[in-house]
Amino acid sequence: MDDGERLKKIREEIAERTRIIVEAFCQRTLLASEIASLKMKLNLPIDDYHVEKNLAKQTREICSKYGINPDKGLRLLNLLISESIALQKSAQEPPSTPTTIFEESKRLEEQGSKVIHLEVGEPDFGPPQRVVDATIKALNEGRTHYTSKYGLPELRRAIADKMSERWGASIKPNEILVTPGGRAALTLALSATLKQGDSAIIIEPAWPAYRVSVESLGCRARVVHTKLEEEWEPDVNEIEELIDETTKIVILNSPNNPTGKVLSRRTIESIIEIVTKHNLTILSDEAYTEFSYKDRYSILPEDCDKIVIGTFSKAWGMTGFRLGYLITSSERCAAIAELAGELYTCVPEPIQWAGVAALGCFDKVDTYVAEMKKRCELVTSLLKPLSIEFKEPDGAFYIFFKLKNGMSGEEFVEHMFKKHLVALTPGSGFGNYSQFVRLSFCRPEEELREGVARMRGML
Amino acid sequence: MDDGERLKKIREEIAERTRIIVEAFCQRTLLASEIASLKMKLNLPIDDYHVEKNLAKQTREICSKYGINPDKGLRLLNLLISESIALQKSAQEPPSTPTTIFEESKRLEEQGSKVIHLEVGEPDFGPPQRVVDATIKALNEGRTHYTSKYGLPELRRAIADKMSERWGASIKPNEILVTPGGRAALTLALSATLKQGDSAIIIEPAWPAYRVSVESLGCRARVVHTKLEEEWEPDVNEIEELIDETTKIVILNSPNNPTGKVLSRRTIESIIEIVTKHNLTILSDEAYTEFSYKDRYSILPEDCDKIVIGTFSKAWGMTGFRLGYLITSSERCAAIAELAGELYTCVPEPIQWAGVAALGCFDKVDTYVAEMKKRCELVTSLLKPLSIEFKEPDGAFYIFFKLKNGMSGEEFVEHMFKKHLVALTPGSGFGNYSQFVRLSFCRPEEELREGVARMRGML
Repeated sequence: MDDGERLKKIREEIAERTRIIVEAFCQRTLLASEIASLKMKLNLPIDDYHVEKNLAKQTREICSKYGINPDKGLRLLNLLISESIALQKSAQEPPSTPTTIFEESKRLEEQGSKVIHLEVGEPDFGPPQRVVDATIKALNEGRTHYTSKYGLPELRRAIADKMSERWGASIKPNEILVTPGGRAALTLALSATLKQGDSAIIIEPAWPAYRVSVESLGCRARVVHTKLEEEWEPDVNEIEELIDETTKIVILNSPNNPTGKVLSRRTIESIIEIVTKHNLTILSDEAYTEFSYKDRYSILPEDCDKIVIGTFSKAWGMTGFRLGYLITSSERCAAIAELAGELYTCVPEPIQWAGVAALGCFDKVDTYVAEMKKRCELVTSLLKPLSIEFKEPDGAFYIFFKLKNGMSGEEFVEHMFKKHLVALTPGSGFGNYSQFVRLSFCRPEEELREGVARMRGML
Repeated sequence: MDDGERLKKIREEIAERTRIIVEAFCQRTLLASEIASLKMKLNLPIDDYHVEKNLAKQTREICSKYGINPDKGLRLLNLLISESIALQKSAQEPPSTPTTIFEESKRLEEQGSKVIHLEVGEPDFGPPQRVVDATIKALNEGRTHYTSKYGLPELRRAIADKMSERWGASIKPNEILVTPGGRAALTLALSATLKQGDSAIIIEPAWPAYRVSVESLGCRARVVHTKLEEEWEPDVNEIEELIDETTKIVILNSPNNPTGKVLSRRTIESIIEIVTKHNLTILSDEAYTEFSYKDRYSILPEDCDKIVIGTFSKAWGMTGFRLGYLITSSERCAAIAELAGELYTCVPEPIQWAGVAALGCFDKVDTYVAEMKKRCELVTSLLKPLSIEFKEPDGAFYIFFKLKNGMSGEEFVEHMFKKHLVALTPGSGFGNYSQFVRLSFCRPEEELREGVARMRGML
């Protein structure tokens, strides 16, 4: 057989295998829609880790029989499962997320209403004057060009030096990527670490961005559900039970949004141990680390595979600058920078000079943190007499409370917003916490008092 | 059989179908790697639309036999084909892209070298003074907060008004999304329009971002290859031949990066006709529209399904502000804003106020465009006597020339960079144009003269 004939023959064989795949796929789709109606009838959940785990095991075995990289097979499997899940979910409503209420408030205010903002995690203090001055200086000096996709060398160096000093770590500038905010750092970090069909472990309640980002990559979010009655302490064994070959990452967020929980050093050490044993990566979102009212802790000095996310938004009151960063190995940093360049080219240059200035004003951060601690004490004392349950926060600037008046979080939030113009966030956005509400104490004392006063009638 | 047993039975059947799919997939993968080496031996191209088209036909027939939406089957097929192509491409080197050379120049300059920058599409003129002043004013007034993910209402209104007036269109603020640059607008627009397994049509040579973004979504880029000998005019029939059920979008970029080609009104009208007939969306990247030295054209007033991408980077010299926007139907705009919020929350507020000011300085844009036109004429006259071939650009600020000295574009660019410190961009980044080089004339006259003088010895 000559090469031309051989090519023709292989093409026919490929067409035949394609036919078999598509045919079985169609049959599988029909079976999946049958299972969807059956599950709805039996009131069973859509996700079923056990069934999936068996399918994954079977897929890996077949791949290894043929000497094919199992990742390829698992990606295909994930496409099949996603199609089935999409089929089953198509009837459901999306939950109301913090941004939705934020957008609604903006609209009301454009119409002239005065809303009490206990919903958004935006400190009311502005950026330090030195930060504003440095941005203006950069603009006046014509520092308004494309920069390296990694960020300005000056800013990377300043972050490396400051974080090394602050946490007793040894961070190099080439381990840092400057990003347009912590949110983008998260998306980029996950995109570079997860392939379709992989999974990530999330400890809930959690910022909804984690789940959304993981799922939008065609990956699965596996959830450790913590409880108020257990003081939001995660069960480390439960984390380990969720790990399988598709697991690549464990996401930590301490202080936690929305509970304000700071993980104990012992818990973090146990998690590091498990993660290292299974060759996983820790993604530590340290957006609120400065706002710790008891212990302060960063995983930066720890010897484990990690990606640390930082932001200038909270500690320096620089939300509207959209400036953040991530710290990881230089190799992974280079891979993530590649994605960053493809996504948004670079962060605005004047904004990056603002970051350099911010790292020189940690004294101002200390003032802001002290003020937030005071507010935390105030709101805690105002809420304590009410008929709700919550754990006093160790950090961040939220109180996550459980209603006892029979209303769901969504109903309560809707009522407070429509009748009393108090914006809050329902717990359902943070996981399976439909009886909870998040209150953010980023507002001046007077507004906090007024907000709680308006809630009192319902609690 | 009760429901529980029935569930168990269907699960077994699903597992069996999954096994069949994965098994055939593994066999198919082995066949694909056999075909890869055969193609390399026979020097055949990796893509083969004819073969693909037959597979697609077969897939549609099977789906319709089972009453399954053919889109699902074609998505699966595209995943299979992508895997085969990845296998065939894995041996190839990634092409050197504009950013790589840009990063290299930055590094050299940090070490003190003086590089002549004919590689990057960044105008050397800075932003208008009124833009700088407005940004400073915003900073001084504390306009540094989160904004709506859609962008500031003031900026959306200003874009809507100005673009309506400029192009005789009727654009409403809710059809506009403010983005951190045109690059991000592109990624967002594609993410919201394409599902895994879909395909998009790209007219090459083209900005590499189109292909990268399409492929990173697990979609196929189908390419119309235009030729210098045909004055970079796309064959409209060829576009239509590439369309099948997976095709969702046709990407236009006029004036084109890298050729400077402006599509004739007749060509665009024919494309709109085809796109409308097949229910597709036009994504029109109008980054260079102001830099049109003959006709100026926007698809904004056209009655077709469209997404128009604009940027403040080029016309206002605001690259380092990272500010752009997209214009589309209000429904699609809302869907894209959802993604944008998830990706980066919002664009920095002071930067958005800069955009409002920029829209009030179109007089300045006219000055910049006149200057670029002068440079275009200069560089054209300097290059004409050399032994290269090119079509004089109708717009943008690039000349895409073909070497006749036997060197590949990559070799020439490497030589010019290493021996003469002139940075250029090899044609291979823009598609299958290995003999071409892109020269950007965004630099002052003197530097352009010096750059061409240094090239002369090799041409």
